[in-house]
Amino acid sequence: MTVYGDYRSGNCYKVRLTLALLEIGHRWFNVDFLTGETRSDDFAVRNPARRIPMLERHDGRTLVESNAILYYLAHDSALVPDDDFDRARMLQWMFFEQHRHEPSLSVARLIHWYQGDPSERLEELVARQENARQALDIMEQTLSTQPFLAGETLTLADIALFAHTHIADQAGLLLLDWPHVVNWCGRIEEIPGFVSMQDIPDDTVPAAII
Amino acid sequence: MTVYGDYRSGNCYKVRLTLALLEIGHRWFNVDFLTGETRSDDFAVRNPARRIPMLERHDGRTLVESNAILYYLAHDSALVPDDDFDRARMLQWMFFEQHRHEPSLSVARLIHWYQGDPSERLEELVARQENARQALDIMEQTLSTQPFLAGETLTLADIALFAHTHIADQAGLLLLDWPHVVNWCGRIEEIPGFVSMQDIPDDTVPAAII
Ligand SMILES: N[C@@H](CCC(=O)N[C@@H](CS)C(=O)NCC(=O)O)C(=O)O
Ligand SMILES: N[C@@H](CCC(=O)N[C@@H](CS)C(=O)NCC(=O)O)C(=O)O
Repeated sequence: MTVYGDYRSGNCYKVRLTLALLEIGHRWFNVDFLTGETRSDDFAVRNPARRIPMLERHDGRTLVESNAILYYLAHDSALVPDDDFDRARMLQWMFFEQHRHEPSLSVARLIHWYQGDPSERLEELVARQENARQALDIMEQTLSTQPFLAGETLTLADIALFAHTHIADQAGLLLLDWPHVVNWCGRIEEIPGFVSMQDIPDDTVPAAII
Repeated sequence: MTVYGDYRSGNCYKVRLTLALLEIGHRWFNVDFLTGETRSDDFAVRNPARRIPMLERHDGRTLVESNAILYYLAHDSALVPDDDFDRARMLQWMFFEQHRHEPSLSVARLIHWYQGDPSERLEELVARQENARQALDIMEQTLSTQPFLAGETLTLADIALFAHTHIADQAGLLLLDWPHVVNWCGRIEEIPGFVSMQDIPDDTVPAAII
């Protein structure tokens, strides 16, 4: 199992965290998403969507979309509920993440953290932050009544939404405004096997040399 | 089983088409997404996300996010592949739809079809159409090698992506530029049980009178 990703990307971190929690051995090849390596024609041969993360199986078949990769890795683990409704509830949050949460938080993070608030993107930053606040409000409401997003136990929904939530400060937001979300982040960080996004392994192999 | 939706919404049409193909009986309550009924405090009591579609079970439990509703309705049908990898591939396209396809096509449609290209949104329209073209290019590439998005048979991925693709003209795009996508739309329209988005039932009950 090989992952093409960048340790600084929230979508890639979801995959890394799931692999760690499930103790799945893998190789990790670095594709830099900030310098445009993801958009290169070399990478497009492997992945026409030109995005990371991408998972490659031993037989060469590939999978993109972080949340689909999560489901593939974890479908028969405790991270995916057996009950049909609970599983749909988990997926509900994962689709919410891709539609409303990630587009707000990850782009706000790019503008604020990586580009340093350039004036020509300030209006967009404010709009993305406002959408991010709405998404965090919706999470806060659910997390005020139950410990994890899909119910009583940790599921892929929590991993998917943790990725960009716990670094909301990099998107210019103060997470303390959502206290139940803060507590939920703390619960996830205590799960056995948890790896922090900030702990970047130094055995990284650039994809170019594969 | 009750659906809260609007027949003119692509995300709601996905649910309607899945219910039709699986011949699942249900009630349909209309919530107007163009006049802001979705954002009303009345509706927020049922659905804090203030969006449609929403599914309500007999026991009162609710589910939002069109693609999660699809999975819940169809998980044990032929619309969801048994094989783990094929199922992940189906989900890949469904997450792609929420992240890259629907945000481009549905917003371009809103600006072009429903708002009539107001000048203050023209720049946004052009940007959304450009993203929509990229999404259609990615679909075209896959559909040039196989009949359906996840492989040889119709899955939820096709239903999810058909919804906003087949009305791309309402987003100001000429679908003829993607011939394999056009043929794929034709294959879907021939599936037994298919209902057209344009056939609006006249027994619609407004949600307000429930
Ligand atoms: N929906 C995709 C999004 C993937 C995505 O946007 N990846 C970013 C890194 S977080 C990327 O590859 N960006 C590079 C680019 O847009 O060129 C997923 O969840 O995997
Ligand atoms: N990700 C959601 C999106 C739902 C959505 O945006 N629904 C639109 C109608 S297509 C809506 O409720 N709009 C009303 C509003 O934004 O107030 C899904 O797939 O169900």
